[in-house]
Amino acid sequence: MAAPYTLILLRHGQSTWNQENLFTGWVDVRLSEQGVTEATRAGVLLKDAGLLPDVLHTSVLSRAIQTANLALESADRMWIDVKRSWRLNERHYGGLQGLDKAATQAKFGQEQFMLWRRSYDTPPPVLADDSEFSQVDDARYAGLGADLPRTECLKDVVERMLPYWHADITDDLRAGKTVLVTAHGNSLRALVKHLDGISDDAIAGLNIPTGIPLVYKLGEDFMPLGPGEYLDPEAAAAGAAAVAAQGASK
Amino acid sequence: MAAPYTLILLRHGQSTWNQENLFTGWVDVRLSEQGVTEATRAGVLLKDAGLLPDVLHTSVLSRAIQTANLALESADRMWIDVKRSWRLNERHYGGLQGLDKAATQAKFGQEQFMLWRRSYDTPPPVLADDSEFSQVDDARYAGLGADLPRTECLKDVVERMLPYWHADITDDLRAGKTVLVTAHGNSLRALVKHLDGISDDAIAGLNIPTGIPLVYKLGEDFMPLGPGEYLDPEAAAAGAAAVAAQGASK
Repeated sequence: MAAPYTLILLRHGQSTWNQENLFTGWVDVRLSEQGVTEATRAGVLLKDAGLLPDVLHTSVLSRAIQTANLALESADRMWIDVKRSWRLNERHYGGLQGLDKAATQAKFGQEQFMLWRRSYDTPPPVLADDSEFSQVDDARYAGLGADLPRTECLKDVVERMLPYWHADITDDLRAGKTVLVTAHGNSLRALVKHLDGISDDAIAGLNIPTGIPLVYKLGEDFMPLGPGEYLDPEAAAAGAAAVAAQGASK
Repeated sequence: MAAPYTLILLRHGQSTWNQENLFTGWVDVRLSEQGVTEATRAGVLLKDAGLLPDVLHTSVLSRAIQTANLALESADRMWIDVKRSWRLNERHYGGLQGLDKAATQAKFGQEQFMLWRRSYDTPPPVLADDSEFSQVDDARYAGLGADLPRTECLKDVVERMLPYWHADITDDLRAGKTVLVTAHGNSLRALVKHLDGISDDAIAGLNIPTGIPLVYKLGEDFMPLGPGEYLDPEAAAAGAAAVAAQGASK
């Protein structure tokens, strides 16, 4: 099928650890009640807009999978094909996983805190393999071997995510399928950085709200024909501002 | 990997139309509240038994997909690979779809009713393409073309289900994966007929309860090394009796 291709990005709804203001990364927490509501509403937004995904790509983290399941349930498209990859996972937050964001900021100071959160190429400290928040014994990553991350900066996420975009996701787009990607704040920032050609510096200012579908029309080269559009722009702006403010208060 | 292979069969939990005692077939109804509870408990049974599926095969009907999603959520295995096929769908109930079981029995008599429900090779009347319960305009079956069923007997289900068993499901078993199949009363009866070598006549007496995992250990030839075992045998026996009694009362 010829372009334009349709790509829908959806960041998972609020998780229990988002709610508690903890760094999450690859820790496999579930959606909060608010997250369930957001995910269900995302499906309604898709259905109301007549945007019917033909195939789903998700990370292997439960909060993204729950979000997809609930959104497809309310969009009445539960039956579409599903492909999962660790390459769509959230950024691995290393030794910060499980820590309180506000306490971390208080302890290390605003500058270091923002460096870990938003610098392009400074990863947090490495997560120890004997940490309760480590993934070394997690069956879903058994195939990764020594490639299992112990920490990641956004640059690392871009480098492990893009091969999946260029192979698996664009394959489905090329076949004329409307593709839904349910993933995470940082794996989606990595993809939007590529699509919108955002510089390593400017990406720090980009925040993606939870639970609101972001729709791109793509050309033959799988690059955008225009800006991505949120299905609920007002809620998206408010959500992005809330993400930007995380850690600053509490 | 070498045998024994592990196969887990799971019939979806009660649907809203099971609850209302209607013939359902390919009509895409959802789980009832009781069905949600059953599906969630099925995942707990799997987890408690240490039976961890590596891959899921489901029909393309929402009630089987919901059941799988909920069971994998409570078993903490949401991230496993998913494959879907119409070949695992419930038997197409033809012109009976949407009719009340008790009313159908009263109208056509006990003999005709049992012939439609339990004879091996007598399909119900054909479903008209202009029926509100037809699937001719359903996107998920667009690839089937003229092969889209308008009615099916159990023999038809066996014939369209077995190719999927012999190719897709046994491929995953051969790779050493523990396979979970979430499907329907009649597509699972068709599979158990094959596995247990049940005759065309005797299959009428086999009823599969909803929401209780049925576990087989299979040899190199993908045939059972012993009888299939329900994870909760008492509840399974009660559930099978309830299925057998459907339509007789109300």
